[in-house]
Amino acid sequence: METFAEKLDRITNKKRSFLCVGLDPDPKRMPISDLLEFNKSIVDSTIDLVAAYKPNLAFYEALGLKGLDELRRTIDYIRTLSSEVLIIGDGKRGDIGHTSEAYAKALFSEWQFDAATVNAYAGLDSIDPFLSYKDKGVFIWCRSSNPGAVELQDLKIANGEQEKPLYEYMASHYYRYNLNGNMGLVVGATYGDEIKIVRTACPDVPFLLPGVGAQKGDMEEALRSGIDQYGRGLLINSSRSIIYASSGLDFAEEARIQALDFNKTIDFNLGLLGKEWSHI
Amino acid sequence: METFAEKLDRITNKKRSFLCVGLDPDPKRMPISDLLEFNKSIVDSTIDLVAAYKPNLAFYEALGLKGLDELRRTIDYIRTLSSEVLIIGDGKRGDIGHTSEAYAKALFSEWQFDAATVNAYAGLDSIDPFLSYKDKGVFIWCRSSNPGAVELQDLKIANGEQEKPLYEYMASHYYRYNLNGNMGLVVGATYGDEIKIVRTACPDVPFLLPGVGAQKGDMEEALRSGIDQYGRGLLINSSRSIIYASSGLDFAEEARIQALDFNKTIDFNLGLLGKEWSHI
Repeated sequence: METFAEKLDRITNKKRSFLCVGLDPDPKRMPISDLLEFNKSIVDSTIDLVAAYKPNLAFYEALGLKGLDELRRTIDYIRTLSSEVLIIGDGKRGDIGHTSEAYAKALFSEWQFDAATVNAYAGLDSIDPFLSYKDKGVFIWCRSSNPGAVELQDLKIANGEQEKPLYEYMASHYYRYNLNGNMGLVVGATYGDEIKIVRTACPDVPFLLPGVGAQKGDMEEALRSGIDQYGRGLLINSSRSIIYASSGLDFAEEARIQALDFNKTIDFNLGLLGKEWSHI
Repeated sequence: METFAEKLDRITNKKRSFLCVGLDPDPKRMPISDLLEFNKSIVDSTIDLVAAYKPNLAFYEALGLKGLDELRRTIDYIRTLSSEVLIIGDGKRGDIGHTSEAYAKALFSEWQFDAATVNAYAGLDSIDPFLSYKDKGVFIWCRSSNPGAVELQDLKIANGEQEKPLYEYMASHYYRYNLNGNMGLVVGATYGDEIKIVRTACPDVPFLLPGVGAQKGDMEEALRSGIDQYGRGLLINSSRSIIYASSGLDFAEEARIQALDFNKTIDFNLGLLGKEWSHI
């Protein structure tokens, strides 16, 4: 059976794209008020260019049951168009085992996401119910890209002789339990250092990188630090810079232009690293 | 304006109860199949005995949109019966600021919970959007009661000269930002030591204690460790031992018997500590 990591690599190679588009509908920023139409337009104009879509559950929950119903319709719509794109439920869920079982059922059986982001603060038994869905990806929230990330995630753990930051400890800790090839890590970074550290600790799990800026320098650094030895094993998320590329009615066309530009930047940098899509 | 902590104390004193009943409907365990009727029956038979209800969102999400609609109806039903009971949305939500804003809106404006549990792994900017709802309680998930809690939460932080476990560091760290009197902490414990440590670090924030066993010894220890200097500042959660007290059609009556017994145990132990309800 194909593992989730293999599936991710198959799709990224086939689409020649690491791009994950965050579907985060914000009524204050959407150029049209109809959430479902907004999502469908973005999907229509980008689906051939992306490896994954990542609806952030918070934005749908903030719109009540109607918002969640439109999430359901968005997922259904993507599925009717293609099976060659991952849909990642970004909810950072996690609780003690009994409750995590219910969350895993919600995300994987009810919503039928291909993968989910999870919060692993409560130890292995809190994420095991997710990992036991062998064909589903489980991206552990390891290092975030916000200013507050340093407050806890970067704390030095006194671990025998060697001190290491909490996020690195977390990555190494859980890495041992990737028995089904379906573990991934969410790793944000400012200058790529954190990504590099986690990649060293976990050489062969897929990374989901959020918060990579529009600047090409950021992208190059993130890519260089995040790829595995084959130049793969990555999804790079972009939300607002793509879905809100234009505040006018040309938002879908502009989203496509941004997605093309994003992929072109990645292609160029993969070339610099000798890891072109064609080399595999 | 009354702070959330004051409101919690007012309600616990008025009801003479620290009891928080977890409304965690599990189709495998409910004696009747109708979720809404199940919840309503539990509420009807316990509402005079409890300070709070705590629906765990995972159990509703696992049942899809229908489950979430029944959560909405459950909340509405509790509100029609009483304003003297807190409703806590247990979702352990938390993400970087922009997303946490959406979660806070979902929990406090859409669902209209009085309080929520949050995950604070990403630092202050990840929980600030919750805390800025000044009249709403924000229970930071600090120490869980599951076996895996030790894996990360108990890690020793190398913090200058003094080492302390991560959960204690987290409690002390966030305590400084309780500017609106609406911060709380979720503190699970096996033997009460962790509760005592966090109470020392945060003398005057409400604790939500999960996982206190049915054994009276556990309860006494948790109570003694968790109360503030006035013998208050607590909610003690019980889910399965109350709502699934009977697998027969007398489940609501049995739930009431268990709730009465729970309160009686607390009353007795408060008495031992000289903190009877009447002493305030």
